[in-house]
Parts: sequence; structure tokens; C-alpha cells
Amino acid sequence: MFSITEKATQKRAKLHNKRLVLKTIYDQGPISRADIARTTHLARTTVSSVVARLIEEGLVAVVGQRSLDRGKPAVLLSTVDNVRRIVGVDLGGREIQGVIADLRGAVIRRIQSPLAGLEGEAALEQLYHLIDALIAKDRESILGIGLGVPGVVDVRQGVVRQSGRLDWWDLPLKKCLEDRYNLPVHIANDSHVAAFGEYTFGNGQDVSNLVLITVGMGVSAGIVLDGRLHFGDSFGAGEIGHLTVVRGENAIRCACGNKGCLETVVNEQTLVEQAREIARRNPHSPLHHFAPSPEAIDLDAVIKAFRTGDEDLQRVIMLMGRRLGDAIAAIASILNIQRIVISGSLADLGPTFVEAMQTELTASLHPMLAAQTNIQLSRLERDIVLKGAIAVVLSAETGLV
Amino acid sequence: MFSITEKATQKRAKLHNKRLVLKTIYDQGPISRADIARTTHLARTTVSSVVARLIEEGLVAVVGQRSLDRGKPAVLLSTVDNVRRIVGVDLGGREIQGVIADLRGAVIRRIQSPLAGLEGEAALEQLYHLIDALIAKDRESILGIGLGVPGVVDVRQGVVRQSGRLDWWDLPLKKCLEDRYNLPVHIANDSHVAAFGEYTFGNGQDVSNLVLITVGMGVSAGIVLDGRLHFGDSFGAGEIGHLTVVRGENAIRCACGNKGCLETVVNEQTLVEQAREIARRNPHSPLHHFAPSPEAIDLDAVIKAFRTGDEDLQRVIMLMGRRLGDAIAAIASILNIQRIVISGSLADLGPTFVEAMQTELTASLHPMLAAQTNIQLSRLERDIVLKGAIAVVLSAETGLV
Repeated sequence: MFSITEKATQKRAKLHNKRLVLKTIYDQGPISRADIARTTHLARTTVSSVVARLIEEGLVAVVGQRSLDRGKPAVLLSTVDNVRRIVGVDLGGREIQGVIADLRGAVIRRIQSPLAGLEGEAALEQLYHLIDALIAKDRESILGIGLGVPGVVDVRQGVVRQSGRLDWWDLPLKKCLEDRYNLPVHIANDSHVAAFGEYTFGNGQDVSNLVLITVGMGVSAGIVLDGRLHFGDSFGAGEIGHLTVVRGENAIRCACGNKGCLETVVNEQTLVEQAREIARRNPHSPLHHFAPSPEAIDLDAVIKAFRTGDEDLQRVIMLMGRRLGDAIAAIASILNIQRIVISGSLADLGPTFVEAMQTELTASLHPMLAAQTNIQLSRLERDIVLKGAIAVVLSAETGLV
Repeated sequence: MFSITEKATQKRAKLHNKRLVLKTIYDQGPISRADIARTTHLARTTVSSVVARLIEEGLVAVVGQRSLDRGKPAVLLSTVDNVRRIVGVDLGGREIQGVIADLRGAVIRRIQSPLAGLEGEAALEQLYHLIDALIAKDRESILGIGLGVPGVVDVRQGVVRQSGRLDWWDLPLKKCLEDRYNLPVHIANDSHVAAFGEYTFGNGQDVSNLVLITVGMGVSAGIVLDGRLHFGDSFGAGEIGHLTVVRGENAIRCACGNKGCLETVVNEQTLVEQAREIARRNPHSPLHHFAPSPEAIDLDAVIKAFRTGDEDLQRVIMLMGRRLGDAIAAIASILNIQRIVISGSLADLGPTFVEAMQTELTASLHPMLAAQTNIQLSRLERDIVLKGAIAVVLSAETGLV
């Protein structure tokens, strides 16, 4: 706050004005220069010169005019959303997903390439190939590259500290990509990135604080506070998979060494395993309609059978929902954040799953807080990390979001 | 970020320069104008004119000179720490505590007046009398008034939303005090204020993220993130007294309506009650050395007996420490904050109490996080809310902290 000099302040004021005008056109366009001046409180001459620069850079264009009662008609301006593009990459799944999107986050092109089995150098090479192919045609228009990476990511240094899944340890990914592409690169943990995606393009656009919980192979969260991601002292914020939610005799040993962690009772594999067990025990289970044998049951079959209202599955899934509710109660007690959004493969279980969380929340959170806390399903579905990666670049490079 | 106009930016640049120079003198003084220019990267003429203004306002003074190898000696400047003063008030105890402090937070004068039994208007009148007496002699020099209030405090509106203890409901305390004293007033929840005190004057000066846990009549926390207090969506952040830490048959019903809340097993009254029970059962308990009868045992007696190493007390207190450890594990999992500081009346139990928390932390937090998490006792003791109230005013009115 106090490290800026007067000169830097003036330069920043100029940049602020440019961003302010661009953001006003982005948020409110089509809009006239006079209305921009009214909205921003900038002088009309300042608005005119900033708009001229933005038109020259191809970010803004004249899209029409509005006739006025008197005088000459007002020229209307809009942002040229698809002139500048952003690359978003999700490294958190079995495949690398990559997209090129416009300034609104709309996907223009999409590529995926297999990642399963690839680790270390080979995974990095695969990433290079994907980005090469993505940007081949649009090189000039690209504002930057954003990536969501599973594991601990040092966003300040741009280094992947540890990603067991990719076998990356202290990999300076930001530098690798910046050297190769000569473009700005932003990397962060995939759950953190997802939270920023939800905040920017999903169910977080109306709030300034939000927690996004991803429930799939494990459970993790991303926390947005005052419109900014909270990373934590060692970039490990939101590691809620290791919250203790089961105590006593029923607590199972977790991979981390402790007992009763949330991840020991809530994850995709455990759910599928329990469903297979139900199918083996009960020849009338609706699960048999969706898979040829108990061993062939996958998450898709579980979700379909759950929707038929099978009681055994209901019991298992409600219990998972309640343990998630315990974690949400802890988050809401500590942070007093009211907007909680659920994403990941288990989010496909739908509103009934959310109801179980809300039930537990009411039973274990201070009633005043429980009444204020609002659990929703993400609307970004499988693209949430990609959207987040795009949002991170948009925020850092343009200030538009 | 984008709501400022160019003019406002210039005005802010001027204010920034003034704060920047003042802070440099505050942090590094005695210091010469040349060294200020080097540190701040401001032009020397700018530094000279800002310093002239600060001397005129009585915030800075010439305190000596340093001879140089060549040329005339450099004049050394320091802040005049006791010229401007700050009022700090703590409304969270059985008495109202009020102090006047200098710019370093050093207490110059202290007043307390009884609060027990006073509620509503009467409590407010008592507060007025205390502040009247505090500022009578120093009216001109006072920068502002800071207050820590038990309950839910809307810091944006300056309204005490609910304080059961004081029977204040939607009381516009900031406006009441500003109207009466014509001075800037800042109010916040007392645990939040305490956390900012620890961050500014205590064991948080070397970190940017910190959680302060106050353990006394109840348990609550204040969270500092990136050097700023996190208040939460409805100003209820840090209400960790209602985290569920006991599940199953042993869970006791809490005043909030739920079962197994942290406050049901960790608080001053419960500890004293359990100590009395120990004394009743065991005629050889060291507790008898510190109180004439079991009914006369108070916290002071408990702490003294605990220090003698009494096993029954050890067991009770270690269990409380472990339940606090559970809460700290949840905080560290969710936020990845490494610095945890304990304050409040139970902090007087000392390092053994902290060891119990650390033991539970190791058993229930991801081992990597547990190793990084550092639990300390506050060094501000009973003055923590007062110091925090002073820090809040210092931060808001001068930017010095």
C-alpha cells in the first residue's frame, strides 16, 4: 500500500482509467462515450482519448448509434469479445483439457489429449503438444495462458511444489511455459482455480465471498474472500479432505496417516465400491439395470440407480452428504461465508445430495449461521477448472473480472 | 479498484506520499531526509515538503544530526510518538477498560469502571463517563477512538447488531460516539479486535496471516488475512465456540441448541466446576492449598494447583487442550494459516496447555500441515483488546500499522 512512488501512481492512474473504461464498456455496452463519462466520473476528453486507444488496439468497436432528442446521434461502443483470446487448461483429470475462449469465457475451440499413465517429463511434453495445437492459429490474439494443476502450487513463484498424480516436484511450470510461448502464464491448484471460475462465471457472481467444494476422487475446496483467492501460507488452503469428521471406533485410517478424515468416507471410489457391494447383496437392486455385473458398476450407473430412488443407495449417499455437511459447518463457523457451491463428479447426484448436507448443517452449525448458509450445485459442471483458468488470466491481465 | 477518478487518484497519491514518509520515519527513525528519499524512491523535494508539513502538524521532530564525511551534517528525524494519542476501550469484561496510548501503543493513562449488572442505556452512559474522563485533558491530541465490543458488530455501518451481555441490539454506537466527541470512532467485535492487536503489537508482527483464539467464558477467534481482519458475510467470522468437537453419546447440549459444541467442553466456568468436583472428591488435592473450600475455588486457584502438577487437574485440562486442538486442526485444514495464538483467561494455564493442543493437532491434522502449524501464547495478556482497539485506529487513521 505504501510502496508506490508518485510517478508510478500517475502511470497506474492511466492504466486504471483504461481498465475502468474497458470494464465499463464490457459490463454495460453497447454504451456511448457520454454515458461512460457519467458512469466513471472521468472527464469526457479523457474518455475519448482512452476509447480511441482501445479501438486502435482492437478491444473496442463502434457497434451502432442511438438517436437523441436533440443534437447528433450518440455512437455506441462494445468490447470486441473475440478479438483477444485466452487459453485455459485443466490438468486435474484423466485427460488434459484445453480450450481457447473469448473475453466472456465462451469456448471457441477445445482439445483434449490422454494423460493417464503419463508422468513427469512425458506429462509436460503432452501439455506442450496440446497448447501448441491450441494456439497454432491464434497466436497473435492470445492474452495469456491459465492452468489448473492438481497438487500444491506456489502461485507467487509459479512453481508446482508437489503433484503426486503428475509426478511433478518443484517444477517451474510458469517459467517453462513463458519461455516456450512468450505469453503471460498463470498457474494455481485446480480446486483454487475452480473456485475463481465459479466466482467469475457461475454461482458466485452476486457475492464477494464464496467456498467451492470439489467432490470427486477426493474432497478439496477453493476459497474466494473479497473477490480474491485465498491460497494459505503454503498454498494449501481448502485441503478439507483431511478434516476429521468421524471419531471413535468407526474412524478409518486415511492415506495421510490420521483417522476419520473426510476423504475416507466421501469419494467417488468408495461410493462405487459400496454400490457394488449393494448389488452383490441384493439381486433386485436397480443397480442391475445400469450395469451387466456388480464389477461393471461405475459412477454413471450409481447416479442413474440413485435417481430411481433405491433405498440402499439413498442411505449410503445421504451419509456421505451428511459428512460433507459437517465439513461445511466447520467452514461456515470459522469463516462466516454464506455461499457454498458443490462441484466435481459427485455433484451429479443432484439436489437430494445437497439436502443431506443442509440437514447436517442445521444439526451442527449455530442456528443463526445455518439459516444464512446457502449450499448450491455448480452450474459450470465439467468445465469449471477451464473457466477458472480463463478467469484467472482475465483478472490478472485485463482486470475485466 | 476501478471506482476512482484521476483527480481522486492524485489526491490519494499525495496522501500516500505523506503516509509513506511518516511510516518510514516511524519504522526507521531517527532517519535523514536523504535516507527517506532513498527508501521511498520519492523525489528529495517531495520528501522535504512532506516532512515540513509533518513537522508543522507536530507528528515529526528533529531529534539530532549525523556528521557525514563531507558536506554539512544530516538532520535526523523521528516521529513524535506521544504528540498524537489514541483512545482504546475494551467492553468485553466485567469492567470497562479504557486507555490512552501513544503512536507506539504504549499506555499513557488507564481507567476502568464497573460494568457488571449494567445493560442497555446504563452501560452506554457508563461508557460515556469513562471516555469523558479519559480524554478530558488531551482532547486536542486525540486521533480517534477504538472499541472492542462483545457480540456481533457491523463494522461497515458502525452498529452493534447484537450484544446479549450488554443488552445492545442494533445500537449505532459509532454514530453515538462520533456525535458526542466529534472524533473518528472504530468499533468491532472484541475477538476480532484482539486478533488485530496481536498482529500489530504481539506475536503476529512477523507474519501476514494469523488466527487468534480467545479462551475464557467462551471460545472465539479473530482471523487476520494478508494483514487485514476477515469479518465474514454477517460479521460472525471466528465463531469457533460452536464447532462440533464431540460426537456420539458424550456430546452435551449447547446453549445454541446443537450438541457437542467446543464451548460445551472448553470454558472457564466448566473448568472451575470440574476443579471443585475434584476437590470435593479428593481431600489431598493441591486445590485445597489455594482455596478455603471447594466452593471458593476460582480460576486463579485452578491455575496455581495445575502448576503444582496435580494429576486430576492435568487430565481435565489436557482434555480441554485436545478439544481446542481439534478446532485448530479444522482452522489449519481450511485456511492453511500457520500462526495460531492463544489468549484469554485460560491462556494463563501456560505452555503445558499448548502442548495438549499440539498433540491433538498432530493426531488429527494432515502431517505436513501439522508440522507447519505453530501454536503460541499471546504476549499481550489482559491488554490484548485494548491494544487491538488502538491498532485499529492507528491503521485506519494513519496507516502506520
